[in-house]
Amino acid sequence: MFKVAILGFGVVGSGTGEVLLMNSEKITHEAGDEVELKYIVDIRDIDDPRFAKYAVKDFSVALNDPEVTIIAETIGGAGVAYEYTKAALLAGKHVVTSNKELVAKHGVELLEIALKNNINYLFEASVGGGIPILRPIQQCLSANRITEVYGILNGTTNYILTAMSEKGASFEDALAEAQKNGYAEANPSADVDGIDALRKICILSDLCFGKNFSPDLVQPIGIRPVSEYDTKYANQGGYKIKLLGRAVSDEATDKVAVYVAPHLVSSDNLLASVTGVMNGIVVRGNALGDVMFYGAGAGKMPTASAVVADIIDCCRHTKNRKRIMWARGSVEDTFPSANIASRWYARVASPEGTVKKYIPDAEILGGDVSQTGFIADEKTKPEVERQLEPFEVLSLFRVI
Amino acid sequence: MFKVAILGFGVVGSGTGEVLLMNSEKITHEAGDEVELKYIVDIRDIDDPRFAKYAVKDFSVALNDPEVTIIAETIGGAGVAYEYTKAALLAGKHVVTSNKELVAKHGVELLEIALKNNINYLFEASVGGGIPILRPIQQCLSANRITEVYGILNGTTNYILTAMSEKGASFEDALAEAQKNGYAEANPSADVDGIDALRKICILSDLCFGKNFSPDLVQPIGIRPVSEYDTKYANQGGYKIKLLGRAVSDEATDKVAVYVAPHLVSSDNLLASVTGVMNGIVVRGNALGDVMFYGAGAGKMPTASAVVADIIDCCRHTKNRKRIMWARGSVEDTFPSANIASRWYARVASPEGTVKKYIPDAEILGGDVSQTGFIADEKTKPEVERQLEPFEVLSLFRVI
Repeated sequence: MFKVAILGFGVVGSGTGEVLLMNSEKITHEAGDEVELKYIVDIRDIDDPRFAKYAVKDFSVALNDPEVTIIAETIGGAGVAYEYTKAALLAGKHVVTSNKELVAKHGVELLEIALKNNINYLFEASVGGGIPILRPIQQCLSANRITEVYGILNGTTNYILTAMSEKGASFEDALAEAQKNGYAEANPSADVDGIDALRKICILSDLCFGKNFSPDLVQPIGIRPVSEYDTKYANQGGYKIKLLGRAVSDEATDKVAVYVAPHLVSSDNLLASVTGVMNGIVVRGNALGDVMFYGAGAGKMPTASAVVADIIDCCRHTKNRKRIMWARGSVEDTFPSANIASRWYARVASPEGTVKKYIPDAEILGGDVSQTGFIADEKTKPEVERQLEPFEVLSLFRVI
Repeated sequence: MFKVAILGFGVVGSGTGEVLLMNSEKITHEAGDEVELKYIVDIRDIDDPRFAKYAVKDFSVALNDPEVTIIAETIGGAGVAYEYTKAALLAGKHVVTSNKELVAKHGVELLEIALKNNINYLFEASVGGGIPILRPIQQCLSANRITEVYGILNGTTNYILTAMSEKGASFEDALAEAQKNGYAEANPSADVDGIDALRKICILSDLCFGKNFSPDLVQPIGIRPVSEYDTKYANQGGYKIKLLGRAVSDEATDKVAVYVAPHLVSSDNLLASVTGVMNGIVVRGNALGDVMFYGAGAGKMPTASAVVADIIDCCRHTKNRKRIMWARGSVEDTFPSANIASRWYARVASPEGTVKKYIPDAEILGGDVSQTGFIADEKTKPEVERQLEPFEVLSLFRVI
């Protein structure tokens, strides 16, 4: 019998409780023994009669109960969640979580504690919700030198960009609609400014390249700079605008660049077909080529099912912890993403003729008398900025 | 130090050798110790100087060498491969393989031997080439009751169907082109008649639903019945024709239906965008919803990288074998796929007016004076056949 405490009874926490009840037979079979909920720790009252009996307000009850060997941390944030996780790991309890902020910021320290205590700290649900991604990278792609990982990591922004693309809406109107439909928060900054996507791509980078890349090292670019003109010109050229998180390893130096920014995605890339709140993540291996993982990147039950899968994995690995670890990294291990060469989409405040005069091989996507959207040849960021010096640049996104 | 023998030095076997050399540093890191190739068993001579030194013609040399603890079986087929695999497992050696025919036919017996000897029999490469799929199902989706798994499991047929769709080619012309370009064998039957896809969907079914579904229980339908008219009408309606393997679990009875057949896939299903030789596999969980795995489903290096990932997993699990197992199944555990209700595409030798007369709500996709392609409402197969009794039916495919 394995006894579990859930910390935080919000969306993912209550979903975790529901999955444990709904699929208890399957879970027992997979874990090799019964998995029983013992406590739900939340400062708020729990009204749901299925769960009220587990409620405690004081974390130390769960922490000090030797029967509880697995903690599901679904509080979120890097405050009390950090404190509780550290305490649980130091007390020799396995911890599983969906908390991307905590893993991105303090993962390396928490993994070190877990390693020292020969217990598990697992966080499949922190990236891509229920999509299996961290474990496949860790295990299935282990024979590959991974060179790059990138993807649509935030469902809210993809929902907004899809609405802009399909309805020709402005960013403001599409955001308002997303908020009305419950897909965006009243304060949407963590999503639309790319902060959430940055945390996730940092975790992916840590896992793929073995060294911690701190989200503090880069400033994400969100989707506010995407105008309805960009969407229109992209569509005309057969592209879709997607907010991508991307991590690239330089083979010669082993240094890593991580960034988040809008991209024009060509229609022959499957990510262009990932619409609405769905997520898609591409991993490139030197033997494998590209593989993509696709599914609901958020949502109560999908995310909870990943939390519970990690609980099951803790049951299976009580003695021999899962080999999941990365080293401390520093700015020395990174290189600026501006140095990555790519094609670029630019929208400039000049008519097509002026663009053609300065950049004869520009691929014109669309425009009018006041502006032109076009694609320029493969270049680093400083190079394309030099090329665009004659223009007033309204938008500048990479093409992938 | 882990010592490995490769059985069979064909495409996947030589790729396995190359991945072991190319990524040896990464592999050592992941396995926790050096992984060294000791023998390559093949009755043919090996000319490549990098590998000639490992060549032996007699399997018993590898079998009787106590230093060799891991065998990579890349012979293929269910003849000598079966015999060697059984001998290796009985001798207490871990076996990894890309051999879908052997796993589909004899997996349950070989897994039983592996379980008894507390060793691993792993076969990630047998489905989807390098795409991580079996392990994510086994581990990441463990908290879900899986209700369905389906996908594009054969690259050759997808290449042919893509050519038919994009160029309006006939099946015969598209097959000839695929053969010319090395994507189809001189005798293409295993691919175009759905035999390869059936083996793979049986393995997926075994793993998802826990009981062996023998490929002998069903007759696959391949892509020979797909005409250029079907492709044309499908395109006109916004669908793509794809050969899908599909396994569905009936919740009430826990019985499973498995089949392989061409389908019309709606453009809002990401599988419709999987073109050329690529594979895409959708898994549906009761908590998770749908996730999709996408990548190169075949090819030397991708498949070999999955074989080597399994070798690494054997190194990590020398004492505590991976929990991968399914029970013996029989026809009692199955139900006929004809009982699954779905929408249907039919092409009949009648003009549109006649179709409308008998089936007023038919969604007409296209046609001419001699024939009509249309979509009929959700029905089981016997029901749709009854509905189509007034017609000469030229094609009948499910819509998904």
